[in-house]
Amino acid sequence: MKKNVFVVLCVLISFVCHSQNSDLAMIKTIVDETMTNGTAYTNLRILCKQVGPRLSGSANHFKAVQLTEQMLKKLGIDKVYLQSCLVPHWVRGSKEQGELILAGGKKYPLHLTALGNSIGTGPAGISAPVMEVRSMEELANPRESIKGKIIFFNFKMNPTYIETFKAYGESGISRVRGPAMAAKYGAIGVIVRSLAINLNDYPHTGVTVYNDSFPKIPAIAIRTNDAEYLSRGLIKKSIIKVWFKTNCKMLPDVKGYNVIGEIKGSTFPEEIITVGSHLDSWDLAEGANDDGSGVVQSMEVLRTLHALAIKPKRTIRAVLFVNEENGSRGSEAYLDEAKSKNEKHIFALESDAGGFTPRGFSLDVTDAQRNKIMSWKDLFYPYGVYDFSDGEGGSDIGPLKEIGAALAGLSPDSQRYFDIHHAETDVFENVSERELNLGAANMAALIYLVSEYGM
Amino acid sequence: MKKNVFVVLCVLISFVCHSQNSDLAMIKTIVDETMTNGTAYTNLRILCKQVGPRLSGSANHFKAVQLTEQMLKKLGIDKVYLQSCLVPHWVRGSKEQGELILAGGKKYPLHLTALGNSIGTGPAGISAPVMEVRSMEELANPRESIKGKIIFFNFKMNPTYIETFKAYGESGISRVRGPAMAAKYGAIGVIVRSLAINLNDYPHTGVTVYNDSFPKIPAIAIRTNDAEYLSRGLIKKSIIKVWFKTNCKMLPDVKGYNVIGEIKGSTFPEEIITVGSHLDSWDLAEGANDDGSGVVQSMEVLRTLHALAIKPKRTIRAVLFVNEENGSRGSEAYLDEAKSKNEKHIFALESDAGGFTPRGFSLDVTDAQRNKIMSWKDLFYPYGVYDFSDGEGGSDIGPLKEIGAALAGLSPDSQRYFDIHHAETDVFENVSERELNLGAANMAALIYLVSEYGM
Repeated sequence: MKKNVFVVLCVLISFVCHSQNSDLAMIKTIVDETMTNGTAYTNLRILCKQVGPRLSGSANHFKAVQLTEQMLKKLGIDKVYLQSCLVPHWVRGSKEQGELILAGGKKYPLHLTALGNSIGTGPAGISAPVMEVRSMEELANPRESIKGKIIFFNFKMNPTYIETFKAYGESGISRVRGPAMAAKYGAIGVIVRSLAINLNDYPHTGVTVYNDSFPKIPAIAIRTNDAEYLSRGLIKKSIIKVWFKTNCKMLPDVKGYNVIGEIKGSTFPEEIITVGSHLDSWDLAEGANDDGSGVVQSMEVLRTLHALAIKPKRTIRAVLFVNEENGSRGSEAYLDEAKSKNEKHIFALESDAGGFTPRGFSLDVTDAQRNKIMSWKDLFYPYGVYDFSDGEGGSDIGPLKEIGAALAGLSPDSQRYFDIHHAETDVFENVSERELNLGAANMAALIYLVSEYGM
Repeated sequence: MKKNVFVVLCVLISFVCHSQNSDLAMIKTIVDETMTNGTAYTNLRILCKQVGPRLSGSANHFKAVQLTEQMLKKLGIDKVYLQSCLVPHWVRGSKEQGELILAGGKKYPLHLTALGNSIGTGPAGISAPVMEVRSMEELANPRESIKGKIIFFNFKMNPTYIETFKAYGESGISRVRGPAMAAKYGAIGVIVRSLAINLNDYPHTGVTVYNDSFPKIPAIAIRTNDAEYLSRGLIKKSIIKVWFKTNCKMLPDVKGYNVIGEIKGSTFPEEIITVGSHLDSWDLAEGANDDGSGVVQSMEVLRTLHALAIKPKRTIRAVLFVNEENGSRGSEAYLDEAKSKNEKHIFALESDAGGFTPRGFSLDVTDAQRNKIMSWKDLFYPYGVYDFSDGEGGSDIGPLKEIGAALAGLSPDSQRYFDIHHAETDVFENVSERELNLGAANMAALIYLVSEYGM
């Protein structure tokens, strides 16, 4: 009996060693292919320069749909298709303007951007005294009346958080909830300090979410340098009031599309693995890092596996979601169809944190799933990925949790992201080819392992 | 007796836990200070924009010496001084030119740069048929005679090496030794494929080292895009010959300076810890990443400790070495003085791999020293530093090994470095403030620990 146990153990150990060795070799093959022949960077250049900004509902969104559909079709994979849904159609309108009116009548021009989904001011703009708040508590317990004022949310992103997304989450409430909260207390407009950690010369847009219980008031973001100026002026009482004019509005919903490419599983075709990112981007820039990089990485995962003639055991889908930036319709449509078709989604991986050098994967999984993924951890170390922390998968794949999918998000280095996030500087030139490829390579490796061993 | 052992153990454990906790807290304080109030980025802007290129022997080197000496003096630390030595004085001279002569007489202009320390061609330039080699073996066993030809070293950097310095080391032999080796076989000139992994539009310079046994022949680097063009043309036999003209020359040695700032140790002042980087830079660009970033990080280590009123137990010196790029005179001078003064150098840390997000430290230490450093490893994890591999400290601190110093080098993310290394694109704009600060913060943390616990 003991001998039998010993033999079984030996066989098991030899099997485990063998799989580990063959996984090691296969992952090197995958990474080498992506780093040598990857097309993500070229595709990103085309997406950024030939299409550019591609907010849901815009003509450019449709161009981006056609372009990426063609890119996927060129791969020669099993299936490429579109999935339609209604999406919001917010437009910025003509040039936005604003200025601070200083004591003595001088004016200081503001560099501003309307917040996504916000209403416009009307042609005359709005003008009122400004009151600065640095926390939601300060807004709820104001030192003076808010009524009729423009509230300036001066929420600095905390520079001591090494994970910059933590700072974004903390300060981001000013942009996402600030306008609704200020309206509750009687403000007529909102200025938000751009969600950039550094001091820079560009306003950063992003979505705001109104609350139906309170009036919708116009909301803008100003560049961090202007926020510093405004704050100093308010302290010195040298700023009398602010005026700004925005021309944005929400039009009726229009049709939008998720773009989907698929490699059918060879052994368990009914088990679906999704690798996702969002195709829409803010209208100020090319959306190179948010989320063009994720789009081309998701496609690259399929290209790499296909180029290596890997027949994955499970079905792998790259999904380029519509409407992440100012809604979640694409993500909802994907879930709805999965539910209506009774699909079995075992795993989803999202890349929506920039095309920077990967450092890890954040995991939203069960204990058993975490143990499985952690058993692969050492396979990633040579490729710069070492951090497998619990966290979120991402907003587009998030709903798949409802139907049982394990979720993971690529965690790239985040130090530069909020310098350019949602600003006109989010352009192709701010993406590094090797960093982008290395992210795609690690994504392909993880997707490969899940396709081999299930979840 | 057993009870005594137990008590001793408890005291020890409590002591260790206490130190770990207080180290944890102190390192957070250090990192927070650097990330919040760091001046490295501002100093780098000044160094890059007010001085710019600063090759040893150039007027700009002296400007950089004065500037950084002032920056260190402004810190109010114990001692700031210069250490002089003779340095080579190589000058590029007037505009370099070159072209490929195609079959049919057409010409293709080359974007080129003379290699550092190379001789010039004379006013007429040199012209000859080109022969491509892809390895040193191919040079030693050529398929045709090398005599009278210009050798084109087309050594591609291997894109599958995730540690890009490995690819640099492997292909770099073409630039460092290629001209001497080609001369040995009778070549009259050398063209080197720039040491960039990506295809780009800039020639990358760097030092070449002649061999006194063979003639010195002119040597240039061409941009990788031109290298691809040249290689294709040679295969198609559409390129007849190449002509290029360089005007560089080596002038007599001149005086140069290491700039040194020091905080005296409070308990063991005779034990010296060096944090080093090199002040000189190639003449094509601002030397922002090579090695302006290391310079401002080294100074930032002192600034942070001083700003926090930390009295280090051991003496800490920031040393900004002269002449790393085309010699090693600054580094030799520092060692010579250390030896002549019988100084006790226990540890040296170098930053000369770019101002990118740190990932680790490479260690050139004894087993006991490695164990000590590894016992601190977890303290760095929250700040993105996880990789403590054996490797080199760096070329400027390297000689200190002779007198017993443990050596370490900051290992930043290396994916973008060779896009801009030694090219005109190595400018301030390609450095991220947070990445730079995070490197400095981790350096300060390591220096602090060594100053507390010795080595």
